[in-house]
Amino acid sequence: MTTRADGRADDELRPISFTRGFTSHPAGSVLVEFGGTRVLCTASVTDGVPRWRKGSGLGWLTAEYAMLPSSTHERSSRESVRGKIGGRTHEISRLVGRSLRACIDLAALGENTIAIDCDVLQADGGTRTASITGAYVALADAVAWLGAAGKLKDPQPLSCAIAAVSVGVVDGRVRLDLPYEEDSRAEVDMNVVATDAGTLVEVQGTGEGATFPRATLEKLLDMAEVGTSALFEAQKAALALPYPGDLPGAK
Amino acid sequence: MTTRADGRADDELRPISFTRGFTSHPAGSVLVEFGGTRVLCTASVTDGVPRWRKGSGLGWLTAEYAMLPSSTHERSSRESVRGKIGGRTHEISRLVGRSLRACIDLAALGENTIAIDCDVLQADGGTRTASITGAYVALADAVAWLGAAGKLKDPQPLSCAIAAVSVGVVDGRVRLDLPYEEDSRAEVDMNVVATDAGTLVEVQGTGEGATFPRATLEKLLDMAEVGTSALFEAQKAALALPYPGDLPGAK
Amino acid sequence: MTTRADGRADDELRPISFTRGFTSHPAGSVLVEFGGTRVLCTASVTDGVPRWRKGSGLGWLTAEYAMLPSSTHERSSRESVRGKIGGRTHEISRLVGRSLRACIDLAALGENTIAIDCDVLQADGGTRTASITGAYVALADAVAWLGAAGKLKDPQPLSCAIAAVSVGVVDGRVRLDLPYEEDSRAEVDMNVVATDAGTLVEVQGTGEGATFPRATLEKLLDMAEVGTSALFEAQKAALALPYPGDLPGAK
Amino acid sequence: MTTRADGRADDELRPISFTRGFTSHPAGSVLVEFGGTRVLCTASVTDGVPRWRKGSGLGWLTAEYAMLPSSTHERSSRESVRGKIGGRTHEISRLVGRSLRACIDLAALGENTIAIDCDVLQADGGTRTASITGAYVALADAVAWLGAAGKLKDPQPLSCAIAAVSVGVVDGRVRLDLPYEEDSRAEVDMNVVATDAGTLVEVQGTGEGATFPRATLEKLLDMAEVGTSALFEAQKAALALPYPGDLPGAK
Amino acid sequence: MTTRADGRADDELRPISFTRGFTSHPAGSVLVEFGGTRVLCTASVTDGVPRWRKGSGLGWLTAEYAMLPSSTHERSSRESVRGKIGGRTHEISRLVGRSLRACIDLAALGENTIAIDCDVLQADGGTRTASITGAYVALADAVAWLGAAGKLKDPQPLSCAIAAVSVGVVDGRVRLDLPYEEDSRAEVDMNVVATDAGTLVEVQGTGEGATFPRATLEKLLDMAEVGTSALFEAQKAALALPYPGDLPGAK
Amino acid sequence: MTTRADGRADDELRPISFTRGFTSHPAGSVLVEFGGTRVLCTASVTDGVPRWRKGSGLGWLTAEYAMLPSSTHERSSRESVRGKIGGRTHEISRLVGRSLRACIDLAALGENTIAIDCDVLQADGGTRTASITGAYVALADAVAWLGAAGKLKDPQPLSCAIAAVSVGVVDGRVRLDLPYEEDSRAEVDMNVVATDAGTLVEVQGTGEGATFPRATLEKLLDMAEVGTSALFEAQKAALALPYPGDLPGAK
Repeated sequence: MTTRADGRADDELRPISFTRGFTSHPAGSVLVEFGGTRVLCTASVTDGVPRWRKGSGLGWLTAEYAMLPSSTHERSSRESVRGKIGGRTHEISRLVGRSLRACIDLAALGENTIAIDCDVLQADGGTRTASITGAYVALADAVAWLGAAGKLKDPQPLSCAIAAVSVGVVDGRVRLDLPYEEDSRAEVDMNVVATDAGTLVEVQGTGEGATFPRATLEKLLDMAEVGTSALFEAQKAALALPYPGDLPGAK
Repeated sequence: MTTRADGRADDELRPISFTRGFTSHPAGSVLVEFGGTRVLCTASVTDGVPRWRKGSGLGWLTAEYAMLPSSTHERSSRESVRGKIGGRTHEISRLVGRSLRACIDLAALGENTIAIDCDVLQADGGTRTASITGAYVALADAVAWLGAAGKLKDPQPLSCAIAAVSVGVVDGRVRLDLPYEEDSRAEVDMNVVATDAGTLVEVQGTGEGATFPRATLEKLLDMAEVGTSALFEAQKAALALPYPGDLPGAK
Repeated sequence: MTTRADGRADDELRPISFTRGFTSHPAGSVLVEFGGTRVLCTASVTDGVPRWRKGSGLGWLTAEYAMLPSSTHERSSRESVRGKIGGRTHEISRLVGRSLRACIDLAALGENTIAIDCDVLQADGGTRTASITGAYVALADAVAWLGAAGKLKDPQPLSCAIAAVSVGVVDGRVRLDLPYEEDSRAEVDMNVVATDAGTLVEVQGTGEGATFPRATLEKLLDMAEVGTSALFEAQKAALALPYPGDLPGAK
Repeated sequence: MTTRADGRADDELRPISFTRGFTSHPAGSVLVEFGGTRVLCTASVTDGVPRWRKGSGLGWLTAEYAMLPSSTHERSSRESVRGKIGGRTHEISRLVGRSLRACIDLAALGENTIAIDCDVLQADGGTRTASITGAYVALADAVAWLGAAGKLKDPQPLSCAIAAVSVGVVDGRVRLDLPYEEDSRAEVDMNVVATDAGTLVEVQGTGEGATFPRATLEKLLDMAEVGTSALFEAQKAALALPYPGDLPGAK
Repeated sequence: MTTRADGRADDELRPISFTRGFTSHPAGSVLVEFGGTRVLCTASVTDGVPRWRKGSGLGWLTAEYAMLPSSTHERSSRESVRGKIGGRTHEISRLVGRSLRACIDLAALGENTIAIDCDVLQADGGTRTASITGAYVALADAVAWLGAAGKLKDPQPLSCAIAAVSVGVVDGRVRLDLPYEEDSRAEVDMNVVATDAGTLVEVQGTGEGATFPRATLEKLLDMAEVGTSALFEAQKAALALPYPGDLPGAK
Repeated sequence: MTTRADGRADDELRPISFTRGFTSHPAGSVLVEFGGTRVLCTASVTDGVPRWRKGSGLGWLTAEYAMLPSSTHERSSRESVRGKIGGRTHEISRLVGRSLRACIDLAALGENTIAIDCDVLQADGGTRTASITGAYVALADAVAWLGAAGKLKDPQPLSCAIAAVSVGVVDGRVRLDLPYEEDSRAEVDMNVVATDAGTLVEVQGTGEGATFPRATLEKLLDMAEVGTSALFEAQKAALALPYPGDLPGAK
């Protein structure tokens, strides 16, 4: 039987951790780790909303994803220096934003914006799924901070939790939470964003260089469910702890 | 029973047409129409490959998608004037490229590139799926041109046909090939790229502002299969005709 | 006697056609063809005027010209991808705008803007003159639409028609409406924008790699007059027909 | 009788001067003054040619025009800070390049480039015509320097002199060499680039907000001839003097 | 007597720490902390040198500094999204590069480049001095890695250690290592980059909104020496430990 | 004894001159010359202040520095054409702004901005110090113009004069006001901005490729004082003359 390079079972996540309060300026700040993938996810509250939304009475949630140049195996060039954002960065930023907007009632914010930043400190596969999963925790902390500050119109604006995981077919086997070594040679690659209410938010399956039968899609979805269930447990456990340094008057 | 604004059944495509040879400079040039959505899809052959692929002996296929400013209900601003490409444009360009690379043996091209351009002349929902479906026809024509010119290392580099269709949940009903009017208020929206060999290339389902159970995903995939089957028929019929103005020596 | 590659007499235009209502979202939308040159010219009405014109009570007319990457003999790179607009594009956009502003009373629009877009679908010489000539027809349709919608302060804001044609010296002969094959080797090249009132709007003659005596200029102007007269006839004939799909309530 | 604000006759140029050797690094460096319009025109010799011209054995001449932010009546913003070049700048840069390429045999340069820079220190109308007229003098000096350095394949690569002047209709009168005060309210505006061999290089006449009969065009061309004749005299007189600081071994 | 908000003496550094091996892909990776200021400093080895240095046989060291959007008290906008780098970022990147080039013999690298990245995770004053001080440690680790890999022409290419500290006049008192709260209201602000050989690399003192006598400059330099001495001790102590996870064959 | 290539003593400035009123549109316009370095420094008054300063009642002073492409020994590329500003340009622009803000009471301007432009016409070392020194003179003239126009809230908003000079160690000797030939091979390079009240505004010393003891820093500061003293004399003498062309009603 083929085993994975890191010794995991096919349906096993890498070690997952959430370090809340990793930095202190944003309302929510979480270092999420999916094995060697480490992403700093923050949720900052800023006044006002984008122009097209002004006067609606509704808030907004926006997200930006980026990789540090030193986060990849070979150093990658800095997008600010190149003067433009690459397509992959754009695509993931949009995915993170859409995913988190699925769980929040934006009317509760009034005309304010929550800006999610997912900055990858170290990349080892699954940076987009770790980003979404960590960003939910940062968002929950930011919402708690807003509530404590009396800035919410509805005290419970989050209707569910959001987590995401990658699944794929590697060496002919359906596997969960692919590290870079597996991701780079997967025949099929899929990212699933789900809620802890048992529903789906986003499903993106792709078979570059190969195509796949629907039966494979079904197996991948089953496998993803195993992963997101475990992630919801981990999020819940992390959020059950008090916010580090949670003093009266602290931001 | 709810009926659709344009009178179609839930599982019915809009009128589909392919006008091959719509312009004459590219090796393949197709105007594809999915109802009111009209996209000019071209496949141009250019010498050489991107730097990172040089010396591999392999060809490349790249794709760019764009909307004319006048193609949308309200005129949109021109990306070249703004000086940057938006995230949605980036995302779709990448999707078109990945989708078409799934059907072609790039080794057959030698170190040459096929550049796919999908320029939306008129947008009425489903521009990305029309782009992929039309681009396949343009690609088939470009490959035929390359073969006739003796420039292919393998005479049959296309392993299957590629088509894409949008499906969604609108007014609580699963529907095929959404026009703008339905797309803009769909609860769930999904794009499926498939092959005529019965496999999938890419599945992207999203529920912005709502989430959806897996049972809905299954119904959406069933519905998509109805659509792509009909699109493969239409592609085959279009390609069965001789290329317009197909004179000896013509490009 | 030297004859032209396409069999035309020196003072003969290529086949000219205007397809009004080519797309349905803009107030005016015309596919203009000068032989193999095909340009989609649209006139979109947008609220407001540029900042420097606010509070003047006057409207504005702006124009943007662009070529599809696949429109040229060899595929050209996409300006939005390069991140900047080339000098030639800038120059022609400005020419189209100036030319059309010569025929319209901008006070009649109130503080609204007509945005002209000229997108070249296929280039075979004379794209800027075809753009101006087609854009006038789109502008006339947009003005009619504005009038029908009761949005004009003056019911007849157009004081004249505008058309443009290229003339040049090729093989030592003065010729009208140069296709790419002649344009690329012309000794002198001139674009003339004129009104159907017999006046000139813009004259641009250039002799890259050669200079020319004033007598040649005079012959070129005479020849241009032959061309613009015919173009005014063609515009008038096209505009005499009812707007396609001209239903009550249609935009 | 209407007189001009600066007391000139309608067919009189402003005071014209050329200060050769205004700066010392470029091979040719001329401060040209047309009244209050002052442009630093330089011609720098650089090794190599643009990529598309490599291997041709031919040289190239390129030109860039720009205005200092402080050169205009109201300070204008800096194009490098805005991050893009405006359409007007592009248009004039191209005009200057085309105009000067009309007088030089590029084969004589071998695969080297002459870069013309026209930087407007003070603008008072006619900056583009002053640029061309001054740039010719800088080019002549650069060519002399190349000849003295033994770097020319043909000792006389300049076939004629080039000068340019603006003419226009102001207050209903045809006038020569318009300052800003006249230019900004001219009914018709025309720039004529000519050679001292009596031929034309470029004619650009435009009537923004007005159109003009051909008879006016003729009068404008007559008037321009008066101006360019005087400019050729002034260029000749300036070039008859030894180059300032012309020491053996000096660049 | 005035005391500092954080209770430090005027000549006392904030708690300093270096976490080597903070990320695993770069050859050197150090999280440096100066109190609440935390910067991830990495040193990546890349093949080749910039174009202007090719063929010299010499290596190069380049540096880029950036702040995460969430690192500041109020979230700042992302430079990659804005499409350009701000002046402050440029200035600090150049300073870091110059400072580290002062201690390394680039000939020892052959034609290879060390790319320093300083990404600020949390900003609380002194980000540029923390960056330089931490980057030296990352550089030392990268050099050790290069040596172990047999890629150095000279086994000891570092001639000295480099550290930097900020000093300033706050509340009329000369103080060491200013946090944001002091920095933002300092009358004079100075950054000193020094070597452990007792020499200076860079001195930048500035008095925005105020000027200062030379006597103050002298006191600031004295104070800086106190700080850099302590920093050299801390660097030495950190580098005395084995590299974390330093296994045979590890990068 | 080593002498300098231009025959100066080590502590001797190059010939310094200020040509006030060099151009006529800005409120202050000075051509400053430090030997072969020539910079056009202008001070333009514009309405309003940057967004972040609105409502403060305070004015602002901003500065932009740039080099003409032809100003350098080898022609340099134009930053507007490249589409971005280089780090060195950014750094110097910021230095000029900070330096001049040290001498002006911005409250006196009301919510108006003085825009300083320093455009290098010819570069021969010391362009940043010449820029600051010349810009002070232009600023003084602009302030006088504002005062005469009754636009100042405080008639004497300038508290001191500002000048800057470069000093360095070349051939082992401390020297004043380095030309390019010395600057490019200096072991230590320092720019000092000072006030005529005997205080310092900015000190930037750097030893790329070498480090320097504090004793050298002291000698450099002594030398700089010699230079700035002479520059203050020269500024005073220049400003003692009436503004050229100073007519009633002139700007």
